[in-house]
Amino acid sequence: MSKFAALNGVEAQALRQSLSLTQQQLAELTKQSLEDVVAWEANEKPMPTPVEKKLLEIDDLIEMQVVNTSDGIEALFKKEPKRRLAFVVYPTQAIYTQYNPEFVSSLPLTELYNTSAWRIKKECKLVLDVDVTLVPLDVEAYKAYREQNELKENRESRAKWAATQLK
Amino acid sequence: MSKFAALNGVEAQALRQSLSLTQQQLAELTKQSLEDVVAWEANEKPMPTPVEKKLLEIDDLIEMQVVNTSDGIEALFKKEPKRRLAFVVYPTQAIYTQYNPEFVSSLPLTELYNTSAWRIKKECKLVLDVDVTLVPLDVEAYKAYREQNELKENRESRAKWAATQLK
Repeated sequence: MSKFAALNGVEAQALRQSLSLTQQQLAELTKQSLEDVVAWEANEKPMPTPVEKKLLEIDDLIEMQVVNTSDGIEALFKKEPKRRLAFVVYPTQAIYTQYNPEFVSSLPLTELYNTSAWRIKKECKLVLDVDVTLVPLDVEAYKAYREQNELKENRESRAKWAATQLK
Repeated sequence: MSKFAALNGVEAQALRQSLSLTQQQLAELTKQSLEDVVAWEANEKPMPTPVEKKLLEIDDLIEMQVVNTSDGIEALFKKEPKRRLAFVVYPTQAIYTQYNPEFVSSLPLTELYNTSAWRIKKECKLVLDVDVTLVPLDVEAYKAYREQNELKENRESRAKWAATQLK
């Protein structure tokens, strides 16, 4: 994607929307003014090249995460066949930053992680016929679960808790 | 996609956003109240099954259009190799309904057509290395072009006009 010719207004808007970002979120993410974002999408001025590059890189990263995660799930299910899986997402930026810091540098906003999670859900259904449920982390319930089961805080414990949330 | 288990709030929101619809647009599209849409996404009540089915069908239709259009472009380019292509989109609902009525029954909103167009652009770049530019139909400029070149109004004339808009 990163070799796209410069995006026009309708394309700039479509890219932002495909990442599930508001104009305000895009402005903050790219350190530009809201007025500038509005102007790009109205085709009144071009999106600066570094901004376009950053957004297309994020889109590429999401696509990569979708492929890698689907591959991981496929490998996992060869050993242990299941047709359902819980995938933890983070309901607020504060919770995302606290619990999923390794993703913050590549996907800075919890909305971007959700976008990725949704595409993973679609891909797993389509390619693997696995039902992925996105489970927003409930911090209190998760803490109680960890105490009950004497678990440390880590990705595996979050996944275990999330699995208990599948009906 | 249509065999998904019922979507929870975060998934309902992700689906809507992946289609680039606002809550208001989703409410109108599905003939539900805005309050209901907000409640689904807050996980306060489940999205009704027919609504979920309709949205997933639209998502499937978009995926199909992406595949079919990319295949069509690939076939076209075997005869006539190009690396650039203009793809007409419609800046308002009125223009969409007037000029692209054959899509209105499957993709009722111009925003859904844009979503499809963006995915086509991505797919063509990734798979065919073809640069697709989304060109919003400028009704006045298009009319002048048709008069000048004595062209009837149809998809082919729109595509010809759009090609003149590539820089």
